[in-house]
Amino acid sequence: MLASNDRTARRNREDFREHEVLVVNLMGGPGAGKTRLLEATIAAIGPAARIGVLTGDLATGTDAARARAAGASAESIATGSACHLDAEMVRGALRRLPWRDFGYLFIENLGNLVCPACYDLGQSVNVVALAVTDGEDKPLKYPTIFQKADLVLLTKVDLLPRLDDVHVDTIRDNLSLVMPQPAMLPVSAKTGEGVDRWVRWLRAYGRPRAAACAVGAW
Amino acid sequence: MLASNDRTARRNREDFREHEVLVVNLMGGPGAGKTRLLEATIAAIGPAARIGVLTGDLATGTDAARARAAGASAESIATGSACHLDAEMVRGALRRLPWRDFGYLFIENLGNLVCPACYDLGQSVNVVALAVTDGEDKPLKYPTIFQKADLVLLTKVDLLPRLDDVHVDTIRDNLSLVMPQPAMLPVSAKTGEGVDRWVRWLRAYGRPRAAACAVGAW
Repeated sequence: MLASNDRTARRNREDFREHEVLVVNLMGGPGAGKTRLLEATIAAIGPAARIGVLTGDLATGTDAARARAAGASAESIATGSACHLDAEMVRGALRRLPWRDFGYLFIENLGNLVCPACYDLGQSVNVVALAVTDGEDKPLKYPTIFQKADLVLLTKVDLLPRLDDVHVDTIRDNLSLVMPQPAMLPVSAKTGEGVDRWVRWLRAYGRPRAAACAVGAW
Repeated sequence: MLASNDRTARRNREDFREHEVLVVNLMGGPGAGKTRLLEATIAAIGPAARIGVLTGDLATGTDAARARAAGASAESIATGSACHLDAEMVRGALRRLPWRDFGYLFIENLGNLVCPACYDLGQSVNVVALAVTDGEDKPLKYPTIFQKADLVLLTKVDLLPRLDDVHVDTIRDNLSLVMPQPAMLPVSAKTGEGVDRWVRWLRAYGRPRAAACAVGAW
């Protein structure tokens, strides 16, 4: 099953590369703030780069509606009881989007720190959203997904002053124990903190294709 | 595979019932505060009722160590890459615990709002921890696990004053749309708020077996 998924993921990746679409597999637990972050990201990138969004969800299509309201072309993938997206689901949903014109395609995976890590979708980069409210130990407790991350976005940092038992440095240390190339950006979609750095990170991946090869999945 | 799991779960349930152990399958996303809540619960129930804890984890045994430090007999189940506990894992781990003497056995499932919902462990009750910081929409987005919950513990309510976009009433309304018998208790393991009501709820399940039949899995 994984071999078949990998074949489809490879086809997806070839297609995305041919049309120069930077594809972000955005993962994270439930409530990590992925959708809110996407809203802020779409606003910060602006309409010049056409942005697409695919949202995976057990049951609702609300995340796709929010991405559309923020200015992206978006479709939802209802997974029913499946706990992750796979490459075939992505390929099927692409038929409903003008993806060849996109500068960026964000695939918002299901809220789950375990299963999505095992399924390649054909993405350019893996980004994991981790909320400061989820505690310092999550990189050590769910190592696989962080091992595969090109970048961790530490979300909801506006709540840090209320969390006397959560320290950014400890999270960074824990990430450095599991990520082959540790990279973390603190962000708050609410206050806008860090969103500009995150967009610069994206642009660095998207623009000079050769340079990006050195650090990512291209 | 599910049929085989159900058979083992039935055996577990018969054994637990024979020895009058109330078994709580505690589920919730990563960072919902399950372990912290267990620490507060063990302290509130007190040493008279012997308490056992099984913690499911991809990689670390830290949760079991925390439960032991709080006064329980605890063992961890390392699942490797599996995204949920199953009845056989529980049955195997029981060999390492004097479970027949327990008044309560808490099984802390993996941090995951999707997969654990599909696997019966033989528990008496399903309890789902949901953090206020995870947002109001989670019951609608992950309905299966909430449909199977006998009780939802709304955790980290001490952070509510900082969350101007999260309202307890909205979460309660969303839960009532998916839970057959809606039941929610707001708690904070940090301040202790609501922990006494949660322990009373547990005692009501554990003591008068006949009355508990009306509402739960016994």
